[in-house]
Amino acid sequence: MRAAVFNEPYSISVTDRPDPMVAEPTDAVVRVVLACVCGSDLWYYRGDSPFDPGPIGHEFAGVVEDVGSEVRHVKQGDFVIAPFAYSDGTCPHCRRGITSACVAGGFFPANGDGGQGEAVRVPLADGTLVRVPGSGHSDETMRSLLTLSDVMATGHHAAVCAGVKAGDTVAVVGDGAVGLCGVLAAKRLDAERIIALSRHPARQELAREFGATDIIEQRGDEAVGAVIEMTDGVGADATLECVGTGQAMDTAFSIARPGSMVGYVGVPHGVELPLQEMFFRNKGLLGGSAPVRAYIPELLDDVLVGRIDPGRVLDFATDLEGIAEAYAAMDERRAIKSLVRVGAI
Amino acid sequence: MRAAVFNEPYSISVTDRPDPMVAEPTDAVVRVVLACVCGSDLWYYRGDSPFDPGPIGHEFAGVVEDVGSEVRHVKQGDFVIAPFAYSDGTCPHCRRGITSACVAGGFFPANGDGGQGEAVRVPLADGTLVRVPGSGHSDETMRSLLTLSDVMATGHHAAVCAGVKAGDTVAVVGDGAVGLCGVLAAKRLDAERIIALSRHPARQELAREFGATDIIEQRGDEAVGAVIEMTDGVGADATLECVGTGQAMDTAFSIARPGSMVGYVGVPHGVELPLQEMFFRNKGLLGGSAPVRAYIPELLDDVLVGRIDPGRVLDFATDLEGIAEAYAAMDERRAIKSLVRVGAI
Repeated sequence: MRAAVFNEPYSISVTDRPDPMVAEPTDAVVRVVLACVCGSDLWYYRGDSPFDPGPIGHEFAGVVEDVGSEVRHVKQGDFVIAPFAYSDGTCPHCRRGITSACVAGGFFPANGDGGQGEAVRVPLADGTLVRVPGSGHSDETMRSLLTLSDVMATGHHAAVCAGVKAGDTVAVVGDGAVGLCGVLAAKRLDAERIIALSRHPARQELAREFGATDIIEQRGDEAVGAVIEMTDGVGADATLECVGTGQAMDTAFSIARPGSMVGYVGVPHGVELPLQEMFFRNKGLLGGSAPVRAYIPELLDDVLVGRIDPGRVLDFATDLEGIAEAYAAMDERRAIKSLVRVGAI
Repeated sequence: MRAAVFNEPYSISVTDRPDPMVAEPTDAVVRVVLACVCGSDLWYYRGDSPFDPGPIGHEFAGVVEDVGSEVRHVKQGDFVIAPFAYSDGTCPHCRRGITSACVAGGFFPANGDGGQGEAVRVPLADGTLVRVPGSGHSDETMRSLLTLSDVMATGHHAAVCAGVKAGDTVAVVGDGAVGLCGVLAAKRLDAERIIALSRHPARQELAREFGATDIIEQRGDEAVGAVIEMTDGVGADATLECVGTGQAMDTAFSIARPGSMVGYVGVPHGVELPLQEMFFRNKGLLGGSAPVRAYIPELLDDVLVGRIDPGRVLDFATDLEGIAEAYAAMDERRAIKSLVRVGAI
């Protein structure tokens, strides 16, 4: 099969790789239809985090080609969404909804297959894959389904961890695909006011369409001042930190009201938590690597009925052979998020 | 009046101070009946945190002697509990239950009066003081009422922030008065299993009487291993960190199960948060300076009906003139917490 490989920073190519085969009785082989490039892939692409040369990608949806003898919940021909982490669905952490901490689980790429390739051997297929009901879904729906593999579920995780409730004033730090999905998730949870921090016109527009009621263009102290002022000195009831940098985290804690939570999902890079502020103002932190698998069913229902359309964050598209450009477009901020059309359904 | 003053580390004396008077229309003057020494007072006593020489103490209960012209909710002769922070009860943070972040509030000692003295001028009396109904309460009840000024409400805050729910397995790090009250709070919230980390026999005994089902005598990695083993590798559903040291925080995060919260109430000293563990295992942190005032009413009801008896943490008693010994007994760990009998009711 053809698959993308990471060679070194700023070098992604497409190469021939062995066709995945069922090796364990709990495996499935999924032929990838749609994949995408994650903001976290950019950490590797830019050389900001180490990554071994080889297959890359962890967001994909596709058709089951083969299953091992113990697989019961998906079968050949099913169109499925794969969360970025595989999990058995039965361990104590999975049963509590923290599938990303599955004792038998792990992250894609796995066993030599990344999501940005023509096929993937998926471990623990019964626990991991979610079958999409129906067929003949529109391209718009298919894009939104793909985002459930990571970015929409991750934005939702930020909102859940921030404790977003109906009627809340929510602030979202970060206007990348996850931040925008965080806006959509906050709206879905019936936040009344959603303040998006964004200085990029196209992203501001999508944030508004996703439910943002206010846009803050400033950064740092100026952004903090603006949010505090527009909340009558109180701060946000729930704050989503969707970047992962120290500045974003500082901003998030500064605009969170006392007693509220910061839900964070950006992999922390150079973050030092403001512990005194957290302690004396009772501001909490919860989040991390999203237990995507646990969230897919409820989000899937909303995508299928058209209640949410997170696929709109995918504003650049290419085929697998063009994937280097998919990375470059995101790296240069020409794209919010890049879709890779890998195969026919 | 007579009042305790902090002179320098390891030196507390009792001296003559001006009698407090109503100065603002929102003030009340409270004649102190019972006071106590807080674990956080020991940070100053030991020279671990700076403290200005002068009045000290922030946990007291007593009788209202005088009120300003705008005070409506308490009157002369009422027996009242004062939380360690004063608050107006009307600002946006107070209305959301975070009275410790009141925009008009502050902490005792205030205006030259500490809680460890014969009387205290209490600012914002309507928002701050809670009247205790009834009269002729037993000494046991009175001691328990006193603990609502800080230590029991703070243990409760740890439990609330840790998200303790009925049926949970809860771990409590710290066997000081707050940790023991955390055990009692977890029991009150219907935790099924309560694991107390304590190596001190008298404290272990009280922990068991407060509801601990298991005692871990080890510390550090050994304690972590023991808790993980007794929870079948899962960790605690809710973890209370009631010390404030780096080791206690590390232990708390290591024994918390993925997806759970650490509720922390010990003022952090030398704490570095394990952000990678927090992110990749989805472990959250919430707590801080407890909004005691918001919790007093519900806890007060439970004290008066005898459902909780947190006053049992007060295992050393003296009068005001003997307060230096009250500090020494706690410093030397001869006492869990020292009661100071200041005046008659």
